[in-house]
Amino acid sequence: MFEIHPQLTKDCHSLGRLASGHLLLHRNAEVTWFILVPETEAVDLLDLPPGELQRVMDDCQMLSAYLKQELNFPKVNFGAMGNVVPQLHLHIIGRTPDDVCWPRPVWGNLPEGKTHSAEAIHTFKNTAKRIADGESC
Amino acid sequence: MFEIHPQLTKDCHSLGRLASGHLLLHRNAEVTWFILVPETEAVDLLDLPPGELQRVMDDCQMLSAYLKQELNFPKVNFGAMGNVVPQLHLHIIGRTPDDVCWPRPVWGNLPEGKTHSAEAIHTFKNTAKRIADGESC
Repeated sequence: MFEIHPQLTKDCHSLGRLASGHLLLHRNAEVTWFILVPETEAVDLLDLPPGELQRVMDDCQMLSAYLKQELNFPKVNFGAMGNVVPQLHLHIIGRTPDDVCWPRPVWGNLPEGKTHSAEAIHTFKNTAKRIADGESC
Repeated sequence: MFEIHPQLTKDCHSLGRLASGHLLLHRNAEVTWFILVPETEAVDLLDLPPGELQRVMDDCQMLSAYLKQELNFPKVNFGAMGNVVPQLHLHIIGRTPDDVCWPRPVWGNLPEGKTHSAEAIHTFKNTAKRIADGESC
């Protein structure tokens, strides 16, 4: 039984299931920050077997397209570290030159700030469902 | 004619050409920090067409395997931001719990420190050549 690391559960809202894993949304709404937790025992992104890596990257590309095409973010930051939370998780983050920590990376630099409204979370959950439904067609 | 961004040239040693692009090594030797610059006009990793993304990820996986299997790094951080240098470039970084900025990401947190010896750079260039030769078999 796959379980999401408790630190990620604490930091994020759960949005649903995509083909490669579980989609989370960081509670800090200063930027739009998705976290994808693939269902795997691998701990580093680049350790994934090629087919599994491709499935994960497909999901990340769909999330990035949503951030750019529907939310109009000009830039998407992507990262996989796991130095603090060892469970593999990928960061897909919409950035703009006028966000609170531009041009620095968000990790360690994002001040506590806005939170997502219930309505915004509902919209993101629908997006996750839309991506997952498209994948299962 | 593809040109590497001058900020990357300033920050890095050039190691050679892989299938997807140019391999650089950050001059700061406190961690072993590869930077791959794909030959593309795309500016965000997740905007690459799937075939091109796969070629890039293949190179990143080979660099990660080298860091883990030959240099014994227990952890590899991976990131693609481009908030400061807009040209697409990927970070593939060997990390250990006893490096100078663990567990923080290296970006903005790595103190000026050791530099690579000429011998070390020579070894890394041979590694780049070995990976590229393997790819062209």
